[in-house]
Amino acid sequence: MPTLSPNHPTNHSLHHFLNIEAISTKTLETLLKLTKHFFDSNGRIYSPKPYLQGKIVANLFFEPSTRTLSSFELAAKHLSATVLTLNVATSSTKKGESLADTVRTIAAMQCDFIIVRHADDGAAEFVAREVGAHTSVINAGDGCHAHPTQALLDMFTLQQHFHDLSKLRVAIVGDILHSRVARSDITALQKLGVRDIRAVAPSILLPTEIEKLGVSTYTDLASGLKDVDVIITLRLQHERMHSLNIVPADYAQQYCITNDTLRYAHKDVKVMHPGPMNRGVEIADDVADGPHSLILEQVKNGVAARMAVLALIAKPELGLLT
Amino acid sequence: MPTLSPNHPTNHSLHHFLNIEAISTKTLETLLKLTKHFFDSNGRIYSPKPYLQGKIVANLFFEPSTRTLSSFELAAKHLSATVLTLNVATSSTKKGESLADTVRTIAAMQCDFIIVRHADDGAAEFVAREVGAHTSVINAGDGCHAHPTQALLDMFTLQQHFHDLSKLRVAIVGDILHSRVARSDITALQKLGVRDIRAVAPSILLPTEIEKLGVSTYTDLASGLKDVDVIITLRLQHERMHSLNIVPADYAQQYCITNDTLRYAHKDVKVMHPGPMNRGVEIADDVADGPHSLILEQVKNGVAARMAVLALIAKPELGLLT
Amino acid sequence: MPTLSPNHPTNHSLHHFLNIEAISTKTLETLLKLTKHFFDSNGRIYSPKPYLQGKIVANLFFEPSTRTLSSFELAAKHLSATVLTLNVATSSTKKGESLADTVRTIAAMQCDFIIVRHADDGAAEFVAREVGAHTSVINAGDGCHAHPTQALLDMFTLQQHFHDLSKLRVAIVGDILHSRVARSDITALQKLGVRDIRAVAPSILLPTEIEKLGVSTYTDLASGLKDVDVIITLRLQHERMHSLNIVPADYAQQYCITNDTLRYAHKDVKVMHPGPMNRGVEIADDVADGPHSLILEQVKNGVAARMAVLALIAKPELGLLT
Repeated sequence: MPTLSPNHPTNHSLHHFLNIEAISTKTLETLLKLTKHFFDSNGRIYSPKPYLQGKIVANLFFEPSTRTLSSFELAAKHLSATVLTLNVATSSTKKGESLADTVRTIAAMQCDFIIVRHADDGAAEFVAREVGAHTSVINAGDGCHAHPTQALLDMFTLQQHFHDLSKLRVAIVGDILHSRVARSDITALQKLGVRDIRAVAPSILLPTEIEKLGVSTYTDLASGLKDVDVIITLRLQHERMHSLNIVPADYAQQYCITNDTLRYAHKDVKVMHPGPMNRGVEIADDVADGPHSLILEQVKNGVAARMAVLALIAKPELGLLT
Repeated sequence: MPTLSPNHPTNHSLHHFLNIEAISTKTLETLLKLTKHFFDSNGRIYSPKPYLQGKIVANLFFEPSTRTLSSFELAAKHLSATVLTLNVATSSTKKGESLADTVRTIAAMQCDFIIVRHADDGAAEFVAREVGAHTSVINAGDGCHAHPTQALLDMFTLQQHFHDLSKLRVAIVGDILHSRVARSDITALQKLGVRDIRAVAPSILLPTEIEKLGVSTYTDLASGLKDVDVIITLRLQHERMHSLNIVPADYAQQYCITNDTLRYAHKDVKVMHPGPMNRGVEIADDVADGPHSLILEQVKNGVAARMAVLALIAKPELGLLT
Repeated sequence: MPTLSPNHPTNHSLHHFLNIEAISTKTLETLLKLTKHFFDSNGRIYSPKPYLQGKIVANLFFEPSTRTLSSFELAAKHLSATVLTLNVATSSTKKGESLADTVRTIAAMQCDFIIVRHADDGAAEFVAREVGAHTSVINAGDGCHAHPTQALLDMFTLQQHFHDLSKLRVAIVGDILHSRVARSDITALQKLGVRDIRAVAPSILLPTEIEKLGVSTYTDLASGLKDVDVIITLRLQHERMHSLNIVPADYAQQYCITNDTLRYAHKDVKVMHPGPMNRGVEIADDVADGPHSLILEQVKNGVAARMAVLALIAKPELGLLT
């Protein structure tokens, strides 16, 4: 079936990792199980074998990043890859080179992986079309479109705390309209059988088509959080709010997740945030640093989840381990 | 002969690699043969041995760069060097430290190699004078002066396509006046016996002394390309064109290499470009991405050519392999 | 004694390295001896064993740096650590993330070491309070407060030239008020028994409380340098001078260390500078590049001194080697 894309749902092997939609539930489950493989018995991340020895991983981040870039760098180094991190924001793009040419150039240097972050929706798919067959592309966040490794690490983090995800009630709170995290998380939750997914935000931050995805929408925080097991808070981006005439303090008044608003939810509710946080806007200090927060676990799990993606692409036989 | 520079034409061992003029034809040929040594039977780059294990390679790029910096980083890592890439554009130079002090400081940290790119002509020679005897300097492009590893990779790429370089007709088209690539390529071509080298450009972009180098000049593209086997296109730098009152669209009208203008050349003509390209200015999409283009091969060969330079300096006995 | 800080003077093992004040004289002496351990018989830096294999060292430099950052990177790589250098000046801080959140995030990725440089006094202590027990923090310079690895390398450099430090006369010349190097050097010198420490500067650049530290102050260079064995020159920061109404040329007239002013000192006086230098302001070319200068030795020793800090924290048993 030569016309079948490597990411087609019926094909369980992985070549690119561009979005959650394109992988099968089985592949998602394989990645989740493989993530576990990279923790030792003390809960520390390590790689049992140098699965990426001799492979080149190029980080091509057109948007600034600390946590995602560091997470991919460490994941690749734990697997013994050769890592190349390009300063693309300050070099060839300044010289007017096109994205396609930058990507083809890097791929021509025999890079096995290109990890790409870009401000444009669909940039990762574009990059995947430009590289040759020997290069795999991993989407580290493109525009408002997708952030599939964030969804993977979020699902893994949930599995560490809940036996059966399908029964969860999950509220995603904040700027859903512009959030690549929201899109990828919703799809991943659905692939894992979660049926009660709620989008909670002012109506101006709710995408018009979101209910078609099977997500219920709430503009009132109390109703949206009622009895939920998980709250995924999203970052409010100041520059976007400005153009939408949203004042962060007004937003916080109605939607900030605080110890008070947590009382609407299940008493053991878990709170997540992809970071970086605007403390006091979308999340209060007492929640971010309190017993319900999984935020630093998410960071740690992110390294292992990215190791799983890199390793499964490099060594498809690792899928059998799981 | 203690006053003899290590790069003197009669001395075949290599200590610095500053420009093509300073190395003998024999050393150039050794480097070309050694480049081949770093491809496996499938045409993939690798190093048979960790020739730079325990060596430190410092990248000191005072101008932004994606491809050349990445190429040197990968070359050094393939050879198992310890690689240090400094953000010099944004650190000590901002504090007003002199180039000499920055370089001596880096060399004092026991760096075995300093790879330097700088906007000033002669910067690499300057750096080579400042470092101690244990540090080798490789010129990664200085001003309008020299870019010897580009010339090396260009010659290697030509050797992969032509049995006998000496019979080639080669046209270099574009901003020859400001091009370090043109200077280094012309010298390398001449060392390898090429006699028909043509500089094709508006007269304002032709250096006045260029005919003394044995290069013929053309301001008319049709005559310049007549029957050539190779076209080396050069990047038109917008900021320089502006001060020379050259409008890129007017330049393109007369000098852009397109499928139409290729018809002046030999039917199997090969087209090269050092990158990054201004598509639609000095080269058209159909040529850049077409069957005559060697552009991505150049990128790939660049990694191996830089491995050859690093390895020959670190292990002079590798010259005997070739 | 669970309330005892790991850096408490009576505790010889090392967990964080935040300032010289917090370590015991014994720990300082152990670090100085261990520094020696990382030189081979030819005076080249190397590590006899991969003491940091499997450890992650994260460089978190909120201020630009060439030499200190490079020195830490090389120290960590010589010890076989996995090194992560974050572009914090241009990434998450731009997104408004707090220092605490950046640090906790990096620590959560299982970094064993965070090397921090920051413009604020006390930033390193702050970072040490934010990370978990498994992460060690090394201060690479915080505000005007401390730069303990600089003091360590300075002391080591002095030991290479003087048999008994306690008898030395040491003049520190320049902007002592704003210098983290001065503070750390004074404390280290005192721990090693040096009694004649002089602060030489215009009165506006002398901290008011400095004499309480047991340091004598001089506003006249000739008296301050009289018979000294060591001159530590400090960098005059132009931006700070401007706000204090100090004209660099006027400062140089009175305080620049030149071959002329060296005559006030002992004939074998050694001159040090932490770099980067303002040549012609605080130090003249003939001194910086002359026979009294230890400046490039300081740079070289800095790599080994940082190896000692990293290695002693990772392998406390190395303290027994010394």
